[in-house]
Amino acid sequence: MTVDNPILAVQKPVRRQLDAVQKQLRGLFKTPIPILNEVGGHVLATRGKKFRPTVLLLTAKLRGELNAEAVTCATVVELVHAAALIHDDSVDRSHLRRGMPTVNGLWTDEMAIIMGDYLFAQSMSLLVEHKLTAAMGILARCVTELSCGEALEFQHAYNLNVTEAEYEELIRAKTGSLIGAATEIGAGIDSSGRDLKRRAVYRGFGEKVGVAFQIVDDLFDYLSDSEVAGKPVGYDLAEGKVTLPLIAALRQATEADRKKLRALASRKKWTKGQWEQLRALIEKTGGFEYSRQRAQALADEARGILAREPRTSARRALDAAIDYAVKRDH
Amino acid sequence: MTVDNPILAVQKPVRRQLDAVQKQLRGLFKTPIPILNEVGGHVLATRGKKFRPTVLLLTAKLRGELNAEAVTCATVVELVHAAALIHDDSVDRSHLRRGMPTVNGLWTDEMAIIMGDYLFAQSMSLLVEHKLTAAMGILARCVTELSCGEALEFQHAYNLNVTEAEYEELIRAKTGSLIGAATEIGAGIDSSGRDLKRRAVYRGFGEKVGVAFQIVDDLFDYLSDSEVAGKPVGYDLAEGKVTLPLIAALRQATEADRKKLRALASRKKWTKGQWEQLRALIEKTGGFEYSRQRAQALADEARGILAREPRTSARRALDAAIDYAVKRDH
Repeated sequence: MTVDNPILAVQKPVRRQLDAVQKQLRGLFKTPIPILNEVGGHVLATRGKKFRPTVLLLTAKLRGELNAEAVTCATVVELVHAAALIHDDSVDRSHLRRGMPTVNGLWTDEMAIIMGDYLFAQSMSLLVEHKLTAAMGILARCVTELSCGEALEFQHAYNLNVTEAEYEELIRAKTGSLIGAATEIGAGIDSSGRDLKRRAVYRGFGEKVGVAFQIVDDLFDYLSDSEVAGKPVGYDLAEGKVTLPLIAALRQATEADRKKLRALASRKKWTKGQWEQLRALIEKTGGFEYSRQRAQALADEARGILAREPRTSARRALDAAIDYAVKRDH
Repeated sequence: MTVDNPILAVQKPVRRQLDAVQKQLRGLFKTPIPILNEVGGHVLATRGKKFRPTVLLLTAKLRGELNAEAVTCATVVELVHAAALIHDDSVDRSHLRRGMPTVNGLWTDEMAIIMGDYLFAQSMSLLVEHKLTAAMGILARCVTELSCGEALEFQHAYNLNVTEAEYEELIRAKTGSLIGAATEIGAGIDSSGRDLKRRAVYRGFGEKVGVAFQIVDDLFDYLSDSEVAGKPVGYDLAEGKVTLPLIAALRQATEADRKKLRALASRKKWTKGQWEQLRALIEKTGGFEYSRQRAQALADEARGILAREPRTSARRALDAAIDYAVKRDH
């Protein structure tokens, strides 16, 4: 990992196309409805890293030069992601995301629903307009999975008996599905959907990267400083999200430690001391270590897929994207 | 209008297809996620009249026998409508719709966002699965218009200076667009989208019916008993929705009456006496009469389009659907 912003190195081979994505996005908020443009402007200003469009474009570039269709698909993937995040923040009642105010935080939950729906609608419109039928199929499934991921989160909330398999299915649906859709579209774009085997391989690639990314994200809820994460630490657990460090800790703990863990994890508020005690117990029982290893294992599987590709700048950047997913420090 | 349930007469020529729609809808809630099936079951149980699938099927039947594609499109239109209503109820914080509890009322706003997204996603999936490309294009535009309608409602909230043109554009987007999409799909389904002129005519037909329907709906907020409407009377105005009776009244009133109207309409709560005073002023200045006439004029325009069709059971039922839209008593 470089000391500077590591995502910039990942994006370098597709910098020009990402600028075109940003331009397409800006075009969507020149509507006759002032409030849509106002909220849209905020969404554009706070959307940062464009990880999903980046991996879509890089995966497409593995096979050769990028065309306008790849750029449009990258825009669509970013739109779906922004829509899902905006609805997700409203569902979670988050008022900050990476230190920036959310739509529901600055305006209302109502505006968050409207803006998310508008962005979903625009993503569908762009696909129709550009006759991107294969991408439409991939994204229709993905959007279903995204909402199933949210439903699973609702279903499993505050359930300390959730299993690792249930957790992984949840984060695959919630995070893996869209990164998987991005890399599947990237793999299939040159062949107009005929290259189904390569598409399936790269969907798996993206899902692994996405699940690893989410495991690391969930680790931060326990490990990072709230200033770095841009939201209060312990926020996920307070919201009922039982994630891998705790799941692994509960599974690996002695009977006595498990009892203590369950008591601490059942709270919705903690004193600084209680939170430190919970963290120390997860550390002691290997919950953090297990999570790191699982993320690394998924990253290694993804690297194995890339190893079959010619050594191009796109492949190097995708390797760096995997590093970014599992090694970023916030 | 018949004394019994008039919608049943409208639906008679497409009864069998509407049953098939209901069966397709039920199939969507056999997921591995219990909470989705539970909420979905409630949505199915409380979805009543299927006005949009009905007019889609009837419009298609004007040209001949119905095929499986028409049924799937009818299901999709109902899904989009249910999704939009569920998000809309959450946006409006409505806990009752026609006397039945809403998703946000029974569960939470979070669940309403999730279920709406799931239904949108399923509608997209069905269109992709059945390769209904023309319908996809029509619905992509419609879904954009639906969210723009919601945004306009947000934009114009509590604005007593909103014009009739602005109001009509809002309800065309909010209600006309999906009924217009339903009848456009109905008109275009036999010709695989090649019959663009007929499609445009029937989109206009559905939009007129939809706008008339919404004008009548907005009248009920002033005129009906709350037991019949299934929600508190004056609810719309309390939520900031300035609708045609008030817009027309403010325009047509004397200076003195306009002042009284503005003072009363600026409140968010009314005593029984204040509400009666507001109603009496709108009555006196002709706001209700103007709204009724506007709805009738739109209904007449729609009837004019139908008059060019052969006299079949489908045409008679569509004529009855127009009557239903403007003459229903709640």
